[in-house]
Amino acid sequence: MDSVKVIEIKKSVFASNEEDAARLRKELKDKGVFLLNLMSSPGSGKTTTLIRTIGLLKDKLRMAVMEADIDSDVDALKIKEATGIPSIQLHTGGMCHLDAEMTRQGLDNVPLENLDLVILENVGNLVCPAEFDTGSCKNAMILSVPEGHDKPQKYPLMFSICDVVVINKIDVLPYFDFDLEKCKEYIHMRNPKAQVIPICAKTGEGVEAFANWLLQEVNNWKN
Amino acid sequence: MDSVKVIEIKKSVFASNEEDAARLRKELKDKGVFLLNLMSSPGSGKTTTLIRTIGLLKDKLRMAVMEADIDSDVDALKIKEATGIPSIQLHTGGMCHLDAEMTRQGLDNVPLENLDLVILENVGNLVCPAEFDTGSCKNAMILSVPEGHDKPQKYPLMFSICDVVVINKIDVLPYFDFDLEKCKEYIHMRNPKAQVIPICAKTGEGVEAFANWLLQEVNNWKN
Repeated sequence: MDSVKVIEIKKSVFASNEEDAARLRKELKDKGVFLLNLMSSPGSGKTTTLIRTIGLLKDKLRMAVMEADIDSDVDALKIKEATGIPSIQLHTGGMCHLDAEMTRQGLDNVPLENLDLVILENVGNLVCPAEFDTGSCKNAMILSVPEGHDKPQKYPLMFSICDVVVINKIDVLPYFDFDLEKCKEYIHMRNPKAQVIPICAKTGEGVEAFANWLLQEVNNWKN
Repeated sequence: MDSVKVIEIKKSVFASNEEDAARLRKELKDKGVFLLNLMSSPGSGKTTTLIRTIGLLKDKLRMAVMEADIDSDVDALKIKEATGIPSIQLHTGGMCHLDAEMTRQGLDNVPLENLDLVILENVGNLVCPAEFDTGSCKNAMILSVPEGHDKPQKYPLMFSICDVVVINKIDVLPYFDFDLEKCKEYIHMRNPKAQVIPICAKTGEGVEAFANWLLQEVNNWKN
């Protein structure tokens, strides 16, 4: 359990990422596989949230995780060791985002025929990943309390493309000037349809609501 | 005091950013102006740290601030209102970094002849800004405690190009699994010469050490 598959992602050659993303989404639909694109700033708790979520869904869904990172493979290893599900690391070689073709290069290395759900942990960055459709069925992001409730004002595109915004680290709300209601209001200014789910990945508080949202979305996708 | 100058930055046309950055640095040297490039993740406390630092240096240096942001102008306004020094907002139009030419477009809008120090608050992002030399005299970054001590492992380039790493939000160390010694060790693996300065921008603790470092660097540059 001390190593994971590491895929060196190459730059895309396709002219239109939008078309390629739509094509990938159609392929996933045909295969009955749901792809979640999970985004956030560095250090907001993506990996810990995933481990908790996978724990709650393990008996209900067949899952795999693709961890995009510039260089290291610590996240994929952590997920694999904590959950036992297939995890691969995608090395972007310094690139700050994944597009649909890069995502496909990763998917070519997971056993799609035996899966219901693949979670892509995108590069930790609130700017570039928002600009490239990965071909995912839904987009999720994590905003952590220490980052501040003003982030939807400063990274509008990211919040506008996300179907769900998980607010992590609510256990430290007493120590930060973070206004949860104001944050929800700012998120809904960017995207009125976004669901907002406050959690604490460290203790597990609230993670069930996110897992339930995801389970529902996967079931909708497969039917 | 309710508005700031907003500059819409255009994409660079220069082939070699390295050459352009070297040229800009030389121009700044000739003018006796020091340019600091300040980088970090979203929400790590760049603006609050700047306000504290400017407060400490206000009687010693003539300063201006350029705030790069994708869209909003909240940071430049905050700085202007809190410190009274000239602050302008650079809108990157969705771009995830600044290069030397974009930085020059900003500098064209500050009164360089009356300044010792210009601080550029780069876009909140640990990936892309590290790849583009802005023409700055020194690079600084802020890593905040909630982001985790493993960040130098995951964003190697950023840590390798920074002359100083400020560790912010040390007031919440008791509530996070953040190992300050391990963090220093990881930083020095990437960059043995990097100075590491722990601070709490909210209370002001430790900010003097950063201000002193900056004052020293500005004086060295001008002599």
